[in-house]
Amino acid sequence: MKDTLFLSSKMIISLIQRIGIENVFRGIRDEIKLDYLRWDKFSKSSRTANHSDVGVIELMPISDEETFCFKYVNGHPKNNLLNFPTIMAFSVLSNMKTGLPLLISESTILTGFRTAATSVLMAQKLARSNSQTMAIIGNGAQSEFQALAFYFLMGIKKFRLFDIDKDATFKLIKNLEKYPDIECTICESTADASITADIVTTITADKCNSVILDETMIFPGQHLNAVGGDCPGKTELSKNIILKSKIFVEYILQSQIEGEIQQLKEDEINVSEIWEVLSGIKPGRENDEEITLFDSVGFALEDYSALKYIYQKVLEYNIGEKLDLIPFAENPKNLFGVLL
Amino acid sequence: MKDTLFLSSKMIISLIQRIGIENVFRGIRDEIKLDYLRWDKFSKSSRTANHSDVGVIELMPISDEETFCFKYVNGHPKNNLLNFPTIMAFSVLSNMKTGLPLLISESTILTGFRTAATSVLMAQKLARSNSQTMAIIGNGAQSEFQALAFYFLMGIKKFRLFDIDKDATFKLIKNLEKYPDIECTICESTADASITADIVTTITADKCNSVILDETMIFPGQHLNAVGGDCPGKTELSKNIILKSKIFVEYILQSQIEGEIQQLKEDEINVSEIWEVLSGIKPGRENDEEITLFDSVGFALEDYSALKYIYQKVLEYNIGEKLDLIPFAENPKNLFGVLL
Repeated sequence: MKDTLFLSSKMIISLIQRIGIENVFRGIRDEIKLDYLRWDKFSKSSRTANHSDVGVIELMPISDEETFCFKYVNGHPKNNLLNFPTIMAFSVLSNMKTGLPLLISESTILTGFRTAATSVLMAQKLARSNSQTMAIIGNGAQSEFQALAFYFLMGIKKFRLFDIDKDATFKLIKNLEKYPDIECTICESTADASITADIVTTITADKCNSVILDETMIFPGQHLNAVGGDCPGKTELSKNIILKSKIFVEYILQSQIEGEIQQLKEDEINVSEIWEVLSGIKPGRENDEEITLFDSVGFALEDYSALKYIYQKVLEYNIGEKLDLIPFAENPKNLFGVLL
Repeated sequence: MKDTLFLSSKMIISLIQRIGIENVFRGIRDEIKLDYLRWDKFSKSSRTANHSDVGVIELMPISDEETFCFKYVNGHPKNNLLNFPTIMAFSVLSNMKTGLPLLISESTILTGFRTAATSVLMAQKLARSNSQTMAIIGNGAQSEFQALAFYFLMGIKKFRLFDIDKDATFKLIKNLEKYPDIECTICESTADASITADIVTTITADKCNSVILDETMIFPGQHLNAVGGDCPGKTELSKNIILKSKIFVEYILQSQIEGEIQQLKEDEINVSEIWEVLSGIKPGRENDEEITLFDSVGFALEDYSALKYIYQKVLEYNIGEKLDLIPFAENPKNLFGVLL
């Protein structure tokens, strides 16, 4: 097979609508879990990052014996001022045996799904089992994905919302109206949002060392799902929160550069990786008093899992467009011949 | 501007035909030179490499303040057996200020041009100025690009050809027939090809530590253009040749992993980078007796230069297809809204 397929924004929207949003969350969460459980099969590295004053562009490669995947993703917090998304992404799945790119897919939307699916995967191990309420601090482009993943996969129905941009909160509420058993509370501050929440999700966009949450705002037994800090110099939690929490990360070599734990000194870092918790090598939550922290930065494996899921669906639904990306000469040693 | 353009294989072929092969070589060589002369403006890193038993897939990112570029490229030496190219590539140019991908372009063909253009750029500094004859060891997909770049830009007309696959040599000769002042000699061995050559180009594909050239085959005053060794465990020259030569590389951090100099111990490595020679900080060839060696592995900057050149031409010739890659929601914070 010599085809490289392209999945456009319109096509992925149509595909997701056909599969159903809940099924997509579930499918991607399950793939991510299976892939973290075969952690040692992957050739892994921290993502590359090219920084400018206003943002970053990253490449996230990963492979197993059969399949290579990478995602291109930017982070430009001020893009909203230009009416541009702050995060834009596409990803590529390739055959590791030949190097042929099999699929190039939009992944701005897909990143929303995979990030939230990973958050749920960890919360199911780390939040108290009787969790009912989630605070969402930051009500931008990722917030609906977080809310709905927790709603569909963990049965969370009560959300306490806060954003410095009230319109963002109204937008989130409007998008959740379709689900009548979801109950949203608009909060006046981060402290107000987090005070009675079992799970506190932070997903703000600023590229700086903010303190969105400090230790006065959190309580024993809470699970912190810290998603917004994902870049050197871009964090959301006070150092004291991190020191008080039992910390879980995706891939320590990347997280210590990009995650909340970049604030810790080397000898302060004591974390478990996702695969260790899922495989039972290390414990998740051990009692109802611990504060657990998933210091999420986004790891290439999650994009691999999400894209493999989508590629299966692309083949199943016979969607996607053939892309004339690779010149196949009749004799592969005669590449120059294609120019004549 | 919110467009991501796609340049397919067919489109780049048509574009190159319209510009003319000689002009493309010249244009890309000039861009590469200008970019190496502003070396310190770039955010650089070694490429990422995901290896399997049969090949490698690499990502090559680089950026300056305005522009980000990366190339995807594989290397699967046994692909020819499947009737697949051994090297396939595409590259992406993005706006560093917003993160938006501006162009996705086929780059299998483009890699042929930029590799040969870089070889010429260095040979113009390193080969004896009266050079007339080039040996080409390895007559596969890259060989025509090397031959024609040296023909057009350095006036080389005599080529001594050797490949263990005679059909590859016949193919190369046939492709060069269009240029009546080019004179090809089929050689019986590497030694036979290199013996009277002023410049010796090695471009073989095997992923192993071969000794294509050893010290009995080279002579004072020759310039070695070693292009095929570009991966850990993939080299072409004997260590003694390397020790005897004055060595030039693209980016030492990458070359010591991938280039011929991977055979050297740390304290044996004494090399100049391209930018140092072009800017005059370090000398190129200093007399007619030296053996000079360009230990080429291919660096991201060259792909950046080539793709910027092509992007200019895409805009100038109004070629390329709009790609629906990024979902632009009316309100960028309402990404989820595109699903409804």
